[in-house]
Amino acid sequence: MVQVETFIAAVRSEAAKIDEYMRADLARLEPATDKLLLEVLDYGLFNGGKRIRPLLVVFSSRLCGNGDDDVYRLGSAFEYLHAATLFHDDIIDNSETRRGKKSVHTQFGTVAAILAGDFLHALAMSTVGRFAGSKGLEIFCNATTGMVDGEFMQLRNATKHNLSEPEYYDAIMMKTGLLIAAACEIGAIYGGGTSEQVKALRDYGVNLGCAFQIIDDLLDYLGDPNKTGKAVGNDLIEGKVTLPLILALNGAAEKDRERLLTILATREERAVGVQEVSAIIEGVGGFTAARKKAVAAVANAITVLQVFSEPANHYERNVLEGLARYVLTRDK
Amino acid sequence: MVQVETFIAAVRSEAAKIDEYMRADLARLEPATDKLLLEVLDYGLFNGGKRIRPLLVVFSSRLCGNGDDDVYRLGSAFEYLHAATLFHDDIIDNSETRRGKKSVHTQFGTVAAILAGDFLHALAMSTVGRFAGSKGLEIFCNATTGMVDGEFMQLRNATKHNLSEPEYYDAIMMKTGLLIAAACEIGAIYGGGTSEQVKALRDYGVNLGCAFQIIDDLLDYLGDPNKTGKAVGNDLIEGKVTLPLILALNGAAEKDRERLLTILATREERAVGVQEVSAIIEGVGGFTAARKKAVAAVANAITVLQVFSEPANHYERNVLEGLARYVLTRDK
Repeated sequence: MVQVETFIAAVRSEAAKIDEYMRADLARLEPATDKLLLEVLDYGLFNGGKRIRPLLVVFSSRLCGNGDDDVYRLGSAFEYLHAATLFHDDIIDNSETRRGKKSVHTQFGTVAAILAGDFLHALAMSTVGRFAGSKGLEIFCNATTGMVDGEFMQLRNATKHNLSEPEYYDAIMMKTGLLIAAACEIGAIYGGGTSEQVKALRDYGVNLGCAFQIIDDLLDYLGDPNKTGKAVGNDLIEGKVTLPLILALNGAAEKDRERLLTILATREERAVGVQEVSAIIEGVGGFTAARKKAVAAVANAITVLQVFSEPANHYERNVLEGLARYVLTRDK
Repeated sequence: MVQVETFIAAVRSEAAKIDEYMRADLARLEPATDKLLLEVLDYGLFNGGKRIRPLLVVFSSRLCGNGDDDVYRLGSAFEYLHAATLFHDDIIDNSETRRGKKSVHTQFGTVAAILAGDFLHALAMSTVGRFAGSKGLEIFCNATTGMVDGEFMQLRNATKHNLSEPEYYDAIMMKTGLLIAAACEIGAIYGGGTSEQVKALRDYGVNLGCAFQIIDDLLDYLGDPNKTGKAVGNDLIEGKVTLPLILALNGAAEKDRERLLTILATREERAVGVQEVSAIIEGVGGFTAARKKAVAAVANAITVLQVFSEPANHYERNVLEGLARYVLTRDK
């Protein structure tokens, strides 16, 4: 078993490779592309992202047997789409900061953020089409349309404070899981995996995405703002009901439950009620229970990788297992 | 030579076919897609658009010899991308109406308009990837990134009132020409055209796009708001310098030129100066000169089609010629 620290060192050089290919893409675009657009792309793409999605493409492909260098290009497409999503999401969510820096629309304006997102969208799609063919493109586009669909669901659910646990899992699958699963699946297809291997990596991605988003939602309550770059309780204030709160609502005594629903009902109450909500969730074990669900999802992710039993696959499988465990340790 | 009226009747049934395929796409998406999203798509896609881009795909393909029905699906992708562009552009340009109806962001809000645009983007890309392969997708994505690049150029040129005629042509190529040329080129590739035929159809599209945008820019000054669905002088008020004004600035006496530049300098002056600017442009023959450029572009478009000299191609070539002439007659 690779320790998390060892795993991080192992993937750091691969993440640097992804950055190198992304920088080469921008350099190639430079002569024919507007300078302001290039500045927005540079700002939005190189901001300390961990390159999780490209790394999943790279290691899924290698696990299935293809270690050529074009996989970095294919992987970059996932970072481009992810960044495009963040540019647009930060407008939609009125998020002024991202990883401790001004978000793209705060720094460059809404118009530039919409357009730069559209640009990255197209760049991502053409890259996937080029390296993963029409099958890969279909999976990639389905993940994209699924993410949008999820955002619409969230728009409608913004006033729905009795979100069920299954509804939450559906929502986070659309928000995060689809693209992470697509990275694993497309990487596996690119790597020449058998249909069993492709399915296993997709399932790994679904579970990983689930764990990833649960931890993200936990960090919204419990994270250190200096590390996450976001204010505590931002989701709650925006009216987003996430797993810790759902589990607390399900487990709380009637009095606490009513108090939670009262706070949830108005933005004013939510804005001043973050600490109180957090205390109630903690009191009924909502954070611990949510974390357990993330731990279980990571365990599932690791289990499905057992189809890769060849000793030759050992290293890549260990890295993907390490990546899944890493999700549980992240604090930003 | 097909008269414009005859041509319109001939393509009307084909445009209806495009609508039929688009409606089938929405019906196919319906079970798994958010209801609000579907409502936005329906509203934004079926609003009296003339389906010029899909028609270009269909007739370019047929002119090169392929008349199968999947070409309607490929054609729809161009309407999806076009609509996505309009959703986002109307936010960017603060356009409250589109073809006499509320624009998507005015009707459903900015968030829905951004997201629905992203959805159509992905739908367009996957459709092109599916039916036109990675070569077609590359052309399509280059048109998309080129459009964004053009918007950035426009952002930077917003304060530049001495735009040259070549700069104007570059700008309208990016704004309109690239996608229209891509429709013709991808249609030709789908149709199995020779490289000479593909190039001819692309050149046809470049010229058609140029004429189309010049007429659009003329309509901004001269159109009937009841038909165009837009207020007269909207471009001018927004500070957009288009061909009639450029030609007027080049041809006007010093006094008129200075007056034009004074009005252009501030939004307040522009908002009250539309009639005066129009009168000066008219006085120095700017509208007539701009129209002549559109007529010349249409003549070029028709000339490049001469490579299709087989009698078997006669009908499709006539339709494309008719479409080019139609651009000069449109009043909305």
